[in-house]
Amino acid sequence: MLLISYFEPFGRDPLNSTEVICEEIKRVRRDVQFVKLPTVFYESGTVLTSLIKEVNPDTVIMLGQAGGRAAITPEMVALNWIDARIKDNRGQKPIDKKIVEGGPAAYFSTLPVRKIVEALTKGGIPARVSYSAGTFVCNALFYQVMHFIIENRYQIKAGFVHFPYLSGQVLYREEAPSLDLAKSIEGLNLIIELMEGSL
Amino acid sequence: MLLISYFEPFGRDPLNSTEVICEEIKRVRRDVQFVKLPTVFYESGTVLTSLIKEVNPDTVIMLGQAGGRAAITPEMVALNWIDARIKDNRGQKPIDKKIVEGGPAAYFSTLPVRKIVEALTKGGIPARVSYSAGTFVCNALFYQVMHFIIENRYQIKAGFVHFPYLSGQVLYREEAPSLDLAKSIEGLNLIIELMEGSL
Amino acid sequence: MLLISYFEPFGRDPLNSTEVICEEIKRVRRDVQFVKLPTVFYESGTVLTSLIKEVNPDTVIMLGQAGGRAAITPEMVALNWIDARIKDNRGQKPIDKKIVEGGPAAYFSTLPVRKIVEALTKGGIPARVSYSAGTFVCNALFYQVMHFIIENRYQIKAGFVHFPYLSGQVLYREEAPSLDLAKSIEGLNLIIELMEGSL
Amino acid sequence: MLLISYFEPFGRDPLNSTEVICEEIKRVRRDVQFVKLPTVFYESGTVLTSLIKEVNPDTVIMLGQAGGRAAITPEMVALNWIDARIKDNRGQKPIDKKIVEGGPAAYFSTLPVRKIVEALTKGGIPARVSYSAGTFVCNALFYQVMHFIIENRYQIKAGFVHFPYLSGQVLYREEAPSLDLAKSIEGLNLIIELMEGSL
Repeated sequence: MLLISYFEPFGRDPLNSTEVICEEIKRVRRDVQFVKLPTVFYESGTVLTSLIKEVNPDTVIMLGQAGGRAAITPEMVALNWIDARIKDNRGQKPIDKKIVEGGPAAYFSTLPVRKIVEALTKGGIPARVSYSAGTFVCNALFYQVMHFIIENRYQIKAGFVHFPYLSGQVLYREEAPSLDLAKSIEGLNLIIELMEGSL
Repeated sequence: MLLISYFEPFGRDPLNSTEVICEEIKRVRRDVQFVKLPTVFYESGTVLTSLIKEVNPDTVIMLGQAGGRAAITPEMVALNWIDARIKDNRGQKPIDKKIVEGGPAAYFSTLPVRKIVEALTKGGIPARVSYSAGTFVCNALFYQVMHFIIENRYQIKAGFVHFPYLSGQVLYREEAPSLDLAKSIEGLNLIIELMEGSL
Repeated sequence: MLLISYFEPFGRDPLNSTEVICEEIKRVRRDVQFVKLPTVFYESGTVLTSLIKEVNPDTVIMLGQAGGRAAITPEMVALNWIDARIKDNRGQKPIDKKIVEGGPAAYFSTLPVRKIVEALTKGGIPARVSYSAGTFVCNALFYQVMHFIIENRYQIKAGFVHFPYLSGQVLYREEAPSLDLAKSIEGLNLIIELMEGSL
Repeated sequence: MLLISYFEPFGRDPLNSTEVICEEIKRVRRDVQFVKLPTVFYESGTVLTSLIKEVNPDTVIMLGQAGGRAAITPEMVALNWIDARIKDNRGQKPIDKKIVEGGPAAYFSTLPVRKIVEALTKGGIPARVSYSAGTFVCNALFYQVMHFIIENRYQIKAGFVHFPYLSGQVLYREEAPSLDLAKSIEGLNLIIELMEGSL
């Protein structure tokens, strides 16, 4: 079973592209379990790891919005580090802090990052491998989940994929790149199909 | 009657977004006349001004590709200047040259630039007013056509609109922003409807 | 005689790079007349045109800060248009307005724009020709002054040059490009020497 | 003792900013040992680790050029991954490859990254912490050296610092940000002083 997490809006954004995409796709993808996470350090990880324990998925795909990027970007690496430039949705803004004291510096994604990029590109959707998931809540969630899976020796594939702004989000921020909702949904569908082995 | 021009590919691009968009839209928009122009200094202008003389349109919308932009950008101003950074499709690369010796420094678009941006934005399509059409063939065509219309005292509205790369064009240039083909077609349709008074 | 104008800070910037540069350079360049202008629509132009009438300079170089640019950029064209994205220092934010009702769409700089770029480049200072001075106070001043000079048939060379942020201005805005104060002063000195014929 | 490495030029660049900076600074900094490295995968690491074994420094600072960045950027993390977009100086272009098979996903810098950024900023020099050293030779060297030091239980502080292009390198690439040679030298001097405890 495939478990996909997405985030609520954060910062000054009234929307989070991954929420809009997943709200659409979950109506037709009844085989996939979706969960919305709070954009809050640690709490997002606690919610998702609890759910992983409960539903025992084969694969976990965490989604997040990367405003300013022009392509869908599967993340290669989760970094054991927090350096928040803005507040999370509980008003926390931690700086220069490990996510897991004593944990390794980083975990690699166990999703087939290159294959995801190739499948998207073949499907006509801008995509590239990213080597930095940032140092905010997205990366912290990614690290917490990888650490949880590895510490507990679960046989679960997991990784993080960043999505650009949707076109509708940049109407008053016109220099920012965006990806159309239809293409974004198509992109997430391709990733799901790839992970389910139906691609 | 509405006359819309678009360009053939130039530089290293195998496609020109405006050609792809117009090839699609002209199948359903039989009321609009389309013309493909060579990406060549002066020749593009000669072809279009001849056609204007012949068909006497109410409105002329010139389209061009602006790789690197994230939004549809109606141009406010045509500048009497050429500063080519790359060769046109005849191998010409003129620098520091007026387009029309003795012509005014610039012409303003006579299209309702602000209204176009508002209609696109309202339609959920990233758009903004641009105040520089560059100094390559796009701007030269724009200036030549405005000069021709004004010199001949035609009662024709005319202007230039730049379109971003299509998503399919940035698959191997992943940092570049793009606009989906469907959204681009939708955008051009909105502009046509606005100019035809049906919006 | 050479007259150089620069601007006071505007927006959220506590400094204006052109003020810092000119404050330094005017101590050693006693042959050049400097004037600080308010970053206010029309008022900046009124102050400068009054001074031009009074001192009758051979050459007027208007300076302004272009945050986000990486090079010194002599402007090729002054556009008869205002589209303010932020407020000026009197709280004005005019949109879609001509600077001079009935004036031509644009004036070209009468400074040797290409030669300035070549002199700076030869001197090891990043420079390029710019074809858009924006649609805020800088461009409005530029247009007002060109219009005044041409309307009054003065034999005065005039133009506008944008300078990047100084390095000190981007310390907490670290992605923004900047130019060192020493290089900026060197750059302005080269422009002065070129205009005085001593280069 | 402090050991500083820098790189020879690579790609289409005739210069490497770190070579120019170190060539200048090593004339006056006789207390610091400098070494130029080939921009070649593995070979760069072999040269530097041999030298570390030989001279047994207290601190190793590896320098590299990051064209496109506007600030001096101490790197937080060395990633066990290669994804070369261009060829190194031996014509190698490895993709999707670990640097050390069986090594950890990443090592953190053992330099005081935040303190370096604060010292530079206080000194008026644009600086920020970077969380990705890329996936080319710079990152590979950084990882190899960290792995060597930790595997051999050396008590050596080590890390990597990226420098922008010098102003002289962007004269024909005018949109690229740059840092003046004087400021770059000043920046490296501040880092040296900080590591020597004299700041």
